[in-house]
Amino acid sequence: MSDSSSKAPVNPEKLDKLAQVAVHTGLGLEPGQDLLITAPLTALPLVRKITEHAYKAGAGIVTTFYSDEEATLARYRNAPDDSFDKAANWLYDGMAKAFENNTARLAIAGDNPMMLANEDPEKVSRANRATSKAYKPALKKISGFEINWNIVSYPNPKWAALVFPDLPEDQAVEKLADAIFAASRVDQPDPVAAWAEHNANLHARRDWLNEMNFAALHFTGPGTDLTVGLADGHKWAGGASPAKNGITCNPNIPTEEVFTTPHAHKVNGKVRSTKPLSYQGTLIENIEMIFKDGVAVEVTATKGNDVWNKVLDTDEGARRIGEVALVPHSSPISQSGVLFYNTLFDENAACHIAMGQCYSECFVGGDKMSEEEVTERGGNSSLIHIDWMIGSGAIDIDGITQDGERVPVFRKGEWA
Amino acid sequence: MSDSSSKAPVNPEKLDKLAQVAVHTGLGLEPGQDLLITAPLTALPLVRKITEHAYKAGAGIVTTFYSDEEATLARYRNAPDDSFDKAANWLYDGMAKAFENNTARLAIAGDNPMMLANEDPEKVSRANRATSKAYKPALKKISGFEINWNIVSYPNPKWAALVFPDLPEDQAVEKLADAIFAASRVDQPDPVAAWAEHNANLHARRDWLNEMNFAALHFTGPGTDLTVGLADGHKWAGGASPAKNGITCNPNIPTEEVFTTPHAHKVNGKVRSTKPLSYQGTLIENIEMIFKDGVAVEVTATKGNDVWNKVLDTDEGARRIGEVALVPHSSPISQSGVLFYNTLFDENAACHIAMGQCYSECFVGGDKMSEEEVTERGGNSSLIHIDWMIGSGAIDIDGITQDGERVPVFRKGEWA
Ligand SMILES: [Zn+2]
Ligand SMILES: [Zn+2]
Ligand SMILES: [Zn+2]
Ligand SMILES: [Zn+2]
Repeated sequence: MSDSSSKAPVNPEKLDKLAQVAVHTGLGLEPGQDLLITAPLTALPLVRKITEHAYKAGAGIVTTFYSDEEATLARYRNAPDDSFDKAANWLYDGMAKAFENNTARLAIAGDNPMMLANEDPEKVSRANRATSKAYKPALKKISGFEINWNIVSYPNPKWAALVFPDLPEDQAVEKLADAIFAASRVDQPDPVAAWAEHNANLHARRDWLNEMNFAALHFTGPGTDLTVGLADGHKWAGGASPAKNGITCNPNIPTEEVFTTPHAHKVNGKVRSTKPLSYQGTLIENIEMIFKDGVAVEVTATKGNDVWNKVLDTDEGARRIGEVALVPHSSPISQSGVLFYNTLFDENAACHIAMGQCYSECFVGGDKMSEEEVTERGGNSSLIHIDWMIGSGAIDIDGITQDGERVPVFRKGEWA
Repeated sequence: MSDSSSKAPVNPEKLDKLAQVAVHTGLGLEPGQDLLITAPLTALPLVRKITEHAYKAGAGIVTTFYSDEEATLARYRNAPDDSFDKAANWLYDGMAKAFENNTARLAIAGDNPMMLANEDPEKVSRANRATSKAYKPALKKISGFEINWNIVSYPNPKWAALVFPDLPEDQAVEKLADAIFAASRVDQPDPVAAWAEHNANLHARRDWLNEMNFAALHFTGPGTDLTVGLADGHKWAGGASPAKNGITCNPNIPTEEVFTTPHAHKVNGKVRSTKPLSYQGTLIENIEMIFKDGVAVEVTATKGNDVWNKVLDTDEGARRIGEVALVPHSSPISQSGVLFYNTLFDENAACHIAMGQCYSECFVGGDKMSEEEVTERGGNSSLIHIDWMIGSGAIDIDGITQDGERVPVFRKGEWA
């Protein structure tokens, strides 16, 4: 069509709905609450829509902090060596202070996943470490759910080019935008209502799993025969949940998973990945692992094998798992068949396990437990947390009760 | 020419030079120093260039905080009423903390001057008050010269449309960019060297005026016969000056003025404005005032008379002057003939006086003086500080020595 080039690649009506989902479903923003947004500059159209809907919802002050790929690269290419051990402490301390004062937090994901692929890995790791250290007090308030928070995505052109390498930029952005909209349920007539229904479904699954209080899950499928023992006193989570400030939020848009903490010493058998894993610019494919008493004792991948094995050498906990998550094969993200190169999406396309750190919230009474208690109950501890996909339309899962009985949980990739 | 539409409206080589002038002449950035940039989103190309040159100069971390006209307007049009008494305190407190730790500060000016012209003036004033209050600790470190700082400009399309209303947007931006480049001396072969020479000239004028230690200046010209008594122990300033962290900076790019503090009770005679004054979206033209013992007792303007008189009712000090500044008629900004609707430029096009607050730095030993001492010596105090232009190619200025002798300072708008 002759007028297709004049069409905006990101549908403005759906973008408006995504902003509404982020503000209402994602954050549950309350009147009078301030909002802090972090976003790449490329997400400007979504930031503006979210700002509008946040104020309409009664926000006090909306403040956006933008990151810019070009400025980041200018640093890697021009800054003196000691720059890479520094961070803007004043900014991260300020964010922590904002959260202390009940400011809600919204992050827009959508950076170029390959942004740093050509930079000096040692500088990248030093800069990440310095930023992580500076960000820790603020991140603790987010991951500890002191305030309501949400992550939502916007299609960066370079991200789109990675996902749809054969399309011209405009079409790739349009397709990625549509995939984000579908995964975020904003292609539905009333997205906020669709999310309410979806949350109710996730909560029903979560509550059933908590009632069953399985001792273990047994995964079987092509290349997979894996028993995942669950942590003592584990608790399943998924869907909307209340933050400690009393506001119910959906931290991730999209989200399709119910998940809990496995027992770091009770994982046995073999498992094969069902989708490629994108890790910091490297694609890792066809992972196969054999677990013995929680440790991955044999690890191979047909692509990215070295990178993957090196990551698992990070620390002792990196070869054990800290999360097991159930996602039906019929989830919209899985059905799209798109590999997003972005965990926010890819982990919601299939059942997955995560190497490394567990979630202390996934224990009964977890918010009051010491690190020692978490470890005692089988919670894993590591500097990494990397989800990788083990689910498909061919996977069966049995729950094994505390009495040793088997209960069907998944059959052919769907809830039994 | 057929390829003129593909030309970037802002010349990239000159932009690169402007960034170098900002980093080296404006800030005098030192290796290892962090840098905080504030900028409208429209100034992105200049921010990127400044970031690059700051890192090349050895910057530690460069952090940019962007403002967005659309987000600001979304607030005015959608936020609940009590939003307008709020500010992002965590951000401004963080900035103050950054300056405490010797972070340099660069502001890029270039917002749409008419941005808030259609918004509720009461909300605008409440929001300004709340922001001013939150920003005060940070601003105190800037205006108190605790750290090196600089303001430089980038052509916003809406600003360009106001300055060149008869041109299409691209051409207006190009013309405004060229006017900014010329005023900032980046049209010269070696701009940093040109600034060194210009600073030397300004310092020579400043030093001569300080040596003369005039009791008053007498301005004569069409409609003007004004005697401006100078404050007791006044000190002239202008050009590059050392901040308290020991780094010499040029706070304003461009700058053409040498300026000092007049005596708030010793201004007498009549004065007529020589250029229109742009004040918060209102144009004020052909101001005429009669001063008696420091107070403007008669005030008229052929355009904007009501706004101007209302501003002068702000407080007791608003009808007295707090600054007198000398700018030759041959200054590049004056020669361009462009009215910028931006004080950073327009005040550097002509000799000017400012209604309201004086600069305490413009006293010998001013950095250690109490407010009472400043008042005692004739320094004015007010919530406002508004420069307006009284210079032209027809103005003569005599200095009147402490002994009552007359010394030519300006003849026909130029240094005598
Ligand atoms: Zn997960
Ligand atoms: Zn995970
Ligand atoms: Zn001035
Ligand atoms: Zn002034």
